[in-house]
Amino acid sequence: MAGSKIAFGRTLVVAPHPDDEVLGAGGTIARLASEGEEVFVAIVTEGKPPSFDPAQTARIQAEAAEAHRALGVKETVWLRLPAAQLAETAHAIVNGALLELVRRLSPQTVLVPFVGDMHMDHQLTFTSALVACRPHQAEFPKLILAYETLSETNWNAPYLSPGFLPNVFVDITGHLEAKLEAMQLFASQLRQPPHERSIATLRALATLRGATVMTQAAEAFVLIRQVV
Amino acid sequence: MAGSKIAFGRTLVVAPHPDDEVLGAGGTIARLASEGEEVFVAIVTEGKPPSFDPAQTARIQAEAAEAHRALGVKETVWLRLPAAQLAETAHAIVNGALLELVRRLSPQTVLVPFVGDMHMDHQLTFTSALVACRPHQAEFPKLILAYETLSETNWNAPYLSPGFLPNVFVDITGHLEAKLEAMQLFASQLRQPPHERSIATLRALATLRGATVMTQAAEAFVLIRQVV
Amino acid sequence: MAGSKIAFGRTLVVAPHPDDEVLGAGGTIARLASEGEEVFVAIVTEGKPPSFDPAQTARIQAEAAEAHRALGVKETVWLRLPAAQLAETAHAIVNGALLELVRRLSPQTVLVPFVGDMHMDHQLTFTSALVACRPHQAEFPKLILAYETLSETNWNAPYLSPGFLPNVFVDITGHLEAKLEAMQLFASQLRQPPHERSIATLRALATLRGATVMTQAAEAFVLIRQVV
Amino acid sequence: MAGSKIAFGRTLVVAPHPDDEVLGAGGTIARLASEGEEVFVAIVTEGKPPSFDPAQTARIQAEAAEAHRALGVKETVWLRLPAAQLAETAHAIVNGALLELVRRLSPQTVLVPFVGDMHMDHQLTFTSALVACRPHQAEFPKLILAYETLSETNWNAPYLSPGFLPNVFVDITGHLEAKLEAMQLFASQLRQPPHERSIATLRALATLRGATVMTQAAEAFVLIRQVV
Amino acid sequence: MAGSKIAFGRTLVVAPHPDDEVLGAGGTIARLASEGEEVFVAIVTEGKPPSFDPAQTARIQAEAAEAHRALGVKETVWLRLPAAQLAETAHAIVNGALLELVRRLSPQTVLVPFVGDMHMDHQLTFTSALVACRPHQAEFPKLILAYETLSETNWNAPYLSPGFLPNVFVDITGHLEAKLEAMQLFASQLRQPPHERSIATLRALATLRGATVMTQAAEAFVLIRQVV
Amino acid sequence: MAGSKIAFGRTLVVAPHPDDEVLGAGGTIARLASEGEEVFVAIVTEGKPPSFDPAQTARIQAEAAEAHRALGVKETVWLRLPAAQLAETAHAIVNGALLELVRRLSPQTVLVPFVGDMHMDHQLTFTSALVACRPHQAEFPKLILAYETLSETNWNAPYLSPGFLPNVFVDITGHLEAKLEAMQLFASQLRQPPHERSIATLRALATLRGATVMTQAAEAFVLIRQVV
Repeated sequence: MAGSKIAFGRTLVVAPHPDDEVLGAGGTIARLASEGEEVFVAIVTEGKPPSFDPAQTARIQAEAAEAHRALGVKETVWLRLPAAQLAETAHAIVNGALLELVRRLSPQTVLVPFVGDMHMDHQLTFTSALVACRPHQAEFPKLILAYETLSETNWNAPYLSPGFLPNVFVDITGHLEAKLEAMQLFASQLRQPPHERSIATLRALATLRGATVMTQAAEAFVLIRQVV
Repeated sequence: MAGSKIAFGRTLVVAPHPDDEVLGAGGTIARLASEGEEVFVAIVTEGKPPSFDPAQTARIQAEAAEAHRALGVKETVWLRLPAAQLAETAHAIVNGALLELVRRLSPQTVLVPFVGDMHMDHQLTFTSALVACRPHQAEFPKLILAYETLSETNWNAPYLSPGFLPNVFVDITGHLEAKLEAMQLFASQLRQPPHERSIATLRALATLRGATVMTQAAEAFVLIRQVV
Repeated sequence: MAGSKIAFGRTLVVAPHPDDEVLGAGGTIARLASEGEEVFVAIVTEGKPPSFDPAQTARIQAEAAEAHRALGVKETVWLRLPAAQLAETAHAIVNGALLELVRRLSPQTVLVPFVGDMHMDHQLTFTSALVACRPHQAEFPKLILAYETLSETNWNAPYLSPGFLPNVFVDITGHLEAKLEAMQLFASQLRQPPHERSIATLRALATLRGATVMTQAAEAFVLIRQVV
Repeated sequence: MAGSKIAFGRTLVVAPHPDDEVLGAGGTIARLASEGEEVFVAIVTEGKPPSFDPAQTARIQAEAAEAHRALGVKETVWLRLPAAQLAETAHAIVNGALLELVRRLSPQTVLVPFVGDMHMDHQLTFTSALVACRPHQAEFPKLILAYETLSETNWNAPYLSPGFLPNVFVDITGHLEAKLEAMQLFASQLRQPPHERSIATLRALATLRGATVMTQAAEAFVLIRQVV
Repeated sequence: MAGSKIAFGRTLVVAPHPDDEVLGAGGTIARLASEGEEVFVAIVTEGKPPSFDPAQTARIQAEAAEAHRALGVKETVWLRLPAAQLAETAHAIVNGALLELVRRLSPQTVLVPFVGDMHMDHQLTFTSALVACRPHQAEFPKLILAYETLSETNWNAPYLSPGFLPNVFVDITGHLEAKLEAMQLFASQLRQPPHERSIATLRALATLRGATVMTQAAEAFVLIRQVV
Repeated sequence: MAGSKIAFGRTLVVAPHPDDEVLGAGGTIARLASEGEEVFVAIVTEGKPPSFDPAQTARIQAEAAEAHRALGVKETVWLRLPAAQLAETAHAIVNGALLELVRRLSPQTVLVPFVGDMHMDHQLTFTSALVACRPHQAEFPKLILAYETLSETNWNAPYLSPGFLPNVFVDITGHLEAKLEAMQLFASQLRQPPHERSIATLRALATLRGATVMTQAAEAFVLIRQVV
């Protein structure tokens, strides 16, 4: 917990849409992989016609595959639920998809989007991930952390929606560049500054989160539950 | 409120210790001054012997005077209450000092430190400033905003002490450099990165706060009360 | 912000059902109109058969038209989504309707219902309005405020649903009577005291909100976001 | 309120699924019944095929009937909405079912599940129960309390979902055994320790809640609204 | 709890300064007294020289005595701690004074000021009252409620200090005039509207709190703890 | 973090008064010691005359020494600040005492009382401990957890003071008996059930906290900050 190697063990990162996992936890993924841990990424949704162009969906998924490879992700799982429509998808279906995944992979650690994010897909992914991680199962994840997502987390309603006040900081000093390179691979999702979803803002956020705990770069999380 | 000029009017910035006003609102001060508004800064405490070295106190005050001049502050008021001892100072004395100041200056806008900051001097300055701004007075400030202070605001207890979740963003794109130069003048208070109280972290924070509202640099505040 | 004229600029008031805009912001609308600002009202839903009687729906809309005229509203927009069924309406549709409206009108200020209101239509209107006001758009509203609605805001669960704790007060001393007259035009929605949706309760609320900031009558809001 | 007899009057306990009413309020039900009050239980959902086995549903309902008889429940009402699917059921239908029930029974007191419980059926039952208890009706319940449910309330997200912090304690010292016996009758729902839904954990919870107010056993609630 | 007579039993109202008990609970006191309950008022502080003029202190105490007589208070207890200086008074002294009182009077119900009030005397009175009411004593109050105080409760920092979101409503329809007459007797403390501490604002508040629960006038409270 | 050995490293437990460390973290201390970690306990206060009897103070300290030996504590540090008077002790003194301790011991993990506990000594110990653990020091604790204290944590004001909603669970299945035996050694502090500070209640709490994460016994904590 306080040594030179993160004690996350086998880790599953749950992302509502491709790029959330990099925005929120790309440096942590890179660090875990470099330390020999198995990291899995589950992308919950994909853009489906008619709301989304299949070519664009394919392009984003290709970008994700490349970014995950660069970060050292062991396996990317595509749950293929409809993007921007989780609120219209039966709750049991989202729960079930994540539950099956947790059972198959038996992760020790699960990283989830933040329930206070603006996008309903994020909120519902969070909720279903918690259902999938309930402690009454034979094996359940011992550590659950919520990550922040630039262009989602800061745009909700201060003091009215749940606020992101981080209490877990992962030092990514040696892995910030890997994170930014992975994000560069998401060309279709990247924006120019001063947009939040830009390299400059990602770098600023890592600098700020790092400074809070006296290190060059960090990713910050809110702890949901930890069993030791 | 939404135009090219800030509608803060005559503004008072209340700082528990010298440099808080620059860390939290230096860019806003510079912008207001450049737009022709009168900005006053009140420094609530000073380091007193034996806890503090008078020479060091004098040095910091000289730095503050220079920094304020650079930012265009109209007047700096020194309340000279004992630093790191506001919790042992009669509450009525802190209230009284700020009340007298508010009466003399009749500011339309008051910027205060954040009540959730780690340092008790910040918490008590916040509380007394609110007492001094109560609306039952003949004239009272119509806008009260709390600023964030690197090396204080992020070190308190997430979800247990009041969390800083900003809802007011002041664009300081044209004034970030003035802020950083003013902070450079506080040589005794400045630290090297990755310390929060460094130029690099201040720049990162301004980038992040700006990106949230699609501008190059911003300072962020929590609204306490506004009357229109 | 602190002068004799409100600096809201072109303003859009979003109401889940007709009369919410008057209950929550009727005095502010009247004041803005009297000061020469353009005020738009969007009514998100309408009662549809079989749950609602079309004649009754027509009557309420006629009342709304008259009330808006009396207040000086420039244009009323009817989004005609199904009343009491926003929870069963695809989230993307509500988002899209409001997004298109914000793009067409380019309001500087948007007034929205409170997310902690008891009615799900209010909660979902709030959420979709925030999506429509995200800052990554070319033009986005610089001020977003949530209003309170008698017979909704006070009936939710204290400390469990978001609580309405106002921080922005608009002086409507000269416009309270206009508000109450507009509400009188909503004959189908008005109730006798001691019902919350009565003239007597509206007057009491205006008196209380006014007294908090030492004026005869006010409407109170919670700030969501302001960019200056 | 503070005497030897609870002043709840005619009481309705609303349970999303059979056994929630016993887990959360079984001792209170037993005490009320023993004091001569009429207690009604409404079970909101039932497991429907294909997600649930009708035989299993029948079995649970039979268990519930027996448990309610043991506790002294006057009448059990089955609303038969689809279990684990309230999020996909029109909100107006859940509201309507509970509203009709409140009108028919005119309870003075209503006990509801906690809005912060993990299961969406619990959250939505809470919300609809509050709609059904709105004070603008000719008769409305004067006391609304939310109960805690082992295996639901403690598994949500601390500080992000509403937290259960009890402020009403009902002494069930003389009725704990009746509660545990009723739970034993729910053989299909009971689990072995260390599962939360076990006799041992129910006993521990009653001991803890009791100790907080210096009695041998208690059930704890969060007050939603009380009119005296 | 739900009948025509309040079940508060012997009641102690704790007021930091004279008039708080009338502002917050004057109608409830009048109702309890009219229903035959014994009501005690403890005034925690008195203005002491040099900060306060003894003649003025005597005058306020005489007003209080008269107001209490009018409301039917059985006994007024003067704890005579220094006004506006509770923050500088040893915490054990305030605790001790209230503890002794609770032991002597054995109230079933205690009404306390709200911990989120702006005045530190209110906050500290709240805290010490809770210490004095701890449940590990042979007899302890079974019901603790916090009242709101115009000119204190609404002037603190929304979302940063504890917010007053009432969950207990006492119908004072038949006792509002008695409350206002008692407040009239506090001539030295009364202000003209639009000040919060005016008859007009008190009346507006009672109208609003009443309307929330469909009655002509009410006083509203936040429940701290209730044991039944 | 998720293996069979806790990764807390060298650990400091800060207790306002002797027995808090056992009530809140006795099982965790025993487990850490049994796993070979060095555990230090700092007792912040001692009862001083005239408020406390020196003989009684000596007796409690002797009990503490014995209890700590039984648990395997490496060193007990007595800071000897005045019990029940931390609110009247200069904040800098409490900060300084803890800061020096943290510097001397360089703990990786610090366990602190909960800021929402009823006793001001607990609140102020929490605050000063956080100051002593600020991350800008050469070495600082990488993990800070707040423990719960029966007879303190549950007696504060629900929803108004910070609520204890645990997110870290330490399995003490093999160490519960050691905890209870250590508490037995605190004969002067132990009470008979149904008092919270009894063996029966401690056992019930361990059962409940354990059941939440499917283990026989656990101690629960709120995470303040973790750096990995």
